[in-house]
Amino acid sequence: MNVIPHWLEKQHELQPEATAIEYGEHLSLSYSALREESRKLAKGLIKEGVKTGDHVALLSGNRIEFPICIHALSYIGAVAVCLNTRLTPEELAYQLNDAEVSALIVDPNLVEKAHRTIEEVLLGHDDLIYMNHLPTCNESIELKEQLYLEEVFTMMYTSGTTGKPKAVMHTYGNHWFSAVGSALNLGLSQSDKWLICLPMFHVGGFSLLMKNVIYGMPIRLLSHFDAQVINDEIRYRGVTIVSVVTVMLQRLILDLQQEDYPSSFRCMLLGGGPVPRPLLERASKKDIPVFQTYGMTETSSQIATLSPVDAFRKLGSAGKALAPATLKVIADGRTAAAYETGEIHVKGPMVSGGYYKKAGNDSEYLATGDAGYLDDEGFLYVVDRVKDMIISGGENIYPAEIESVIMGLAGVEEVGVTGTADEEWGEVPVAFVVLQAGADLSLEEMTTYCRQYLASYKIPKRLFIISELPRNASNKIVRRKLFECMERDVY
Amino acid sequence: MNVIPHWLEKQHELQPEATAIEYGEHLSLSYSALREESRKLAKGLIKEGVKTGDHVALLSGNRIEFPICIHALSYIGAVAVCLNTRLTPEELAYQLNDAEVSALIVDPNLVEKAHRTIEEVLLGHDDLIYMNHLPTCNESIELKEQLYLEEVFTMMYTSGTTGKPKAVMHTYGNHWFSAVGSALNLGLSQSDKWLICLPMFHVGGFSLLMKNVIYGMPIRLLSHFDAQVINDEIRYRGVTIVSVVTVMLQRLILDLQQEDYPSSFRCMLLGGGPVPRPLLERASKKDIPVFQTYGMTETSSQIATLSPVDAFRKLGSAGKALAPATLKVIADGRTAAAYETGEIHVKGPMVSGGYYKKAGNDSEYLATGDAGYLDDEGFLYVVDRVKDMIISGGENIYPAEIESVIMGLAGVEEVGVTGTADEEWGEVPVAFVVLQAGADLSLEEMTTYCRQYLASYKIPKRLFIISELPRNASNKIVRRKLFECMERDVY
Repeated sequence: MNVIPHWLEKQHELQPEATAIEYGEHLSLSYSALREESRKLAKGLIKEGVKTGDHVALLSGNRIEFPICIHALSYIGAVAVCLNTRLTPEELAYQLNDAEVSALIVDPNLVEKAHRTIEEVLLGHDDLIYMNHLPTCNESIELKEQLYLEEVFTMMYTSGTTGKPKAVMHTYGNHWFSAVGSALNLGLSQSDKWLICLPMFHVGGFSLLMKNVIYGMPIRLLSHFDAQVINDEIRYRGVTIVSVVTVMLQRLILDLQQEDYPSSFRCMLLGGGPVPRPLLERASKKDIPVFQTYGMTETSSQIATLSPVDAFRKLGSAGKALAPATLKVIADGRTAAAYETGEIHVKGPMVSGGYYKKAGNDSEYLATGDAGYLDDEGFLYVVDRVKDMIISGGENIYPAEIESVIMGLAGVEEVGVTGTADEEWGEVPVAFVVLQAGADLSLEEMTTYCRQYLASYKIPKRLFIISELPRNASNKIVRRKLFECMERDVY
Repeated sequence: MNVIPHWLEKQHELQPEATAIEYGEHLSLSYSALREESRKLAKGLIKEGVKTGDHVALLSGNRIEFPICIHALSYIGAVAVCLNTRLTPEELAYQLNDAEVSALIVDPNLVEKAHRTIEEVLLGHDDLIYMNHLPTCNESIELKEQLYLEEVFTMMYTSGTTGKPKAVMHTYGNHWFSAVGSALNLGLSQSDKWLICLPMFHVGGFSLLMKNVIYGMPIRLLSHFDAQVINDEIRYRGVTIVSVVTVMLQRLILDLQQEDYPSSFRCMLLGGGPVPRPLLERASKKDIPVFQTYGMTETSSQIATLSPVDAFRKLGSAGKALAPATLKVIADGRTAAAYETGEIHVKGPMVSGGYYKKAGNDSEYLATGDAGYLDDEGFLYVVDRVKDMIISGGENIYPAEIESVIMGLAGVEEVGVTGTADEEWGEVPVAFVVLQAGADLSLEEMTTYCRQYLASYKIPKRLFIISELPRNASNKIVRRKLFECMERDVY
């Protein structure tokens, strides 16, 4: 039950000449070529001393060597530790030590950062492997021919906005069930081509490398997000699905002028946190088939998705748990009623068994730390992080709800809301707004606008105009740092 | 890893109002209704004393109660023993005893057979449950909410043409991986509707009940095979996929006159044994998208399928092993070379762990008893049953190859080939032919025709014209009984 053929071997068997990965202007690798490159590298790494069970880190942007390294490690049975390239050397050093990494593969653009990083850790210069000089070997060395679903394949650090990052361990089975769960939801077509513009070191981008070899579906790999480029990819290059986060969708819509997407474009898979409703409405007006999802590193990418049939009826919902998964909302220690907000709990074969070197998750369900509710038909609405909740006069307030409303105000580019101590109410919400060039906004204007959509206790009591929101390496707003920004540039 | 939500609960959650099963002229059940009926029955059966782990047999044709009973048993955690309705009471009694069945659910059309059967077994009249009077209950009784993939769900007896039948045990996981493996091969579309005309007590028909709840795809249930009806279903009822065996495809093509199938019809999934090449060529001429498959009860339905892209290039091949499966050919104890015939061995999470009350399968691969070869691109060609092989002058001869050639002769309705002792050659092949009405055929005509396609040692040395081929309850030719037919009606 727990073993399947190595997925890249299988695609090589099924369709050796089919395109696996398109990248750059006119470059591509067939499954056969992707396999060949990955196996040559695997043997090269073995020659360099990499063994089954070793932890090998990748510090790399989106480049073709990334999937080749990932598959090479699977041929060895080594664990891939995916590092966020935006981290500082100190942050990277913490993760390399914590993950007990024995070798580090480095993007040529990140060599200096890697050198500064290894000064802090037990790795020497011999343990660095450069992507522009990857070791290869053509000798006859035995490589893994099958994958055991319960074996750990990857480790990715949670971008956690508080506390020390923890390494989420994913087994081959976690990734396999995640890919299959998604296919049972979105369907699977011979003509599909999925575009990666999310970083592959995060689970959202990484999961497409898995779909690539599990479905046998071609992917198009971009080095970074560029709205105009992606809009053209969708229009002229046969891309049928794109995974994005909120800010990317915003920019894609801004760039999308007269010409709409072709009808062959079937899915804009939107994840990475709560989504402002006005944005979904703008996408809907442009006939963009947005599928809102819910997921996190611990769930190996999406665990809930809004199905095509409900996309417009349930705007703003992240849908229902994928076929192999279960989801429930717990409030005050019991299953919440419809529309009652509580903490989202998830279960399923794509949910990670735990964090590296931390006590395992004993409970049946994983407590996600996210607040949300189910409507009376069981559709999930993700409200916010539980920890970011503001309690004002006994009422629970979620910043994301307020941010979503303020995003609808003309001239607002971005907004973050957090709580501040208040003698009368305990806490009150305050808003930090980044304005579009030349725009202006007063507390009174904001208050008047918010009154149409929000109960009075939810309306921010103060407004700070700032130049930039504090974000972490995963580009998520760090609300507890909003007041630090204020110190920097209050108007 | 090993637990998923109960699949019918999940479909009820995801799409309660969607059509699950269409049957009869204008009848259908939504997922919500299918769940309701199945749960009411599960509770009714519990009230009658059926418990988790019990073995409950079904003696039923293709009727809507069949899937309801199957799902009811899964809600209880009981094992469904699926009986072949064509068996005699003595044969059924053997299986009921062997499978240690505690209750028997009976189709109203098969009550007399059931009564004659239970005279032979330890079951009493109290242990019979009539499908036209199924017990139901609406009380609050706890039912299974999740499925453990390693638990046994069904038992089906192999139709084995020799020896005593054995009960193949299938876990929930075997069925789940089978369905997912098929989806990864055929794709999955919102507009799919799969027609069942194969008996549901065989794994081929049963597997569609699984796809129905695992994919959330509607199925159309027919009580029996009728070429004209099925051709109309494909033309006018939005059926996109049909599973058939060889004889059904023959009849569908005969009935298919001027009007071809609509372009929305995407797959005629053909299984159940070797296929005569002339038939595939006739289907190809009519633009029927035939996907030849290979599978057996032990593999929970298909384990290899010829992919769309190769359908015409590799006519006659059963393709390659599905994504989660592996297949190899063993000759003389080693992996066979390309084009070398040997015994087919299979492995994968859809392969049954063993037979009830028999020693488990210790080896990594299941030896299928089927002879076949891989071509130089790894495509599987199933030749015949290993046991039916004829050895003539040291040469191996497979009856199916000869039958396939003789089927191309004008006037031949059906043909069976077997070996007979010969002083000079050890064994020689002989042919038993059923002619179309008014046709005629001499040994000389057959020999002349065969010479164009077969080496001389493969050409049957004798010809017997008979009125009917001996078939078992699964409608497969029983070649070892061909000589018995001859005694009955030699011309």
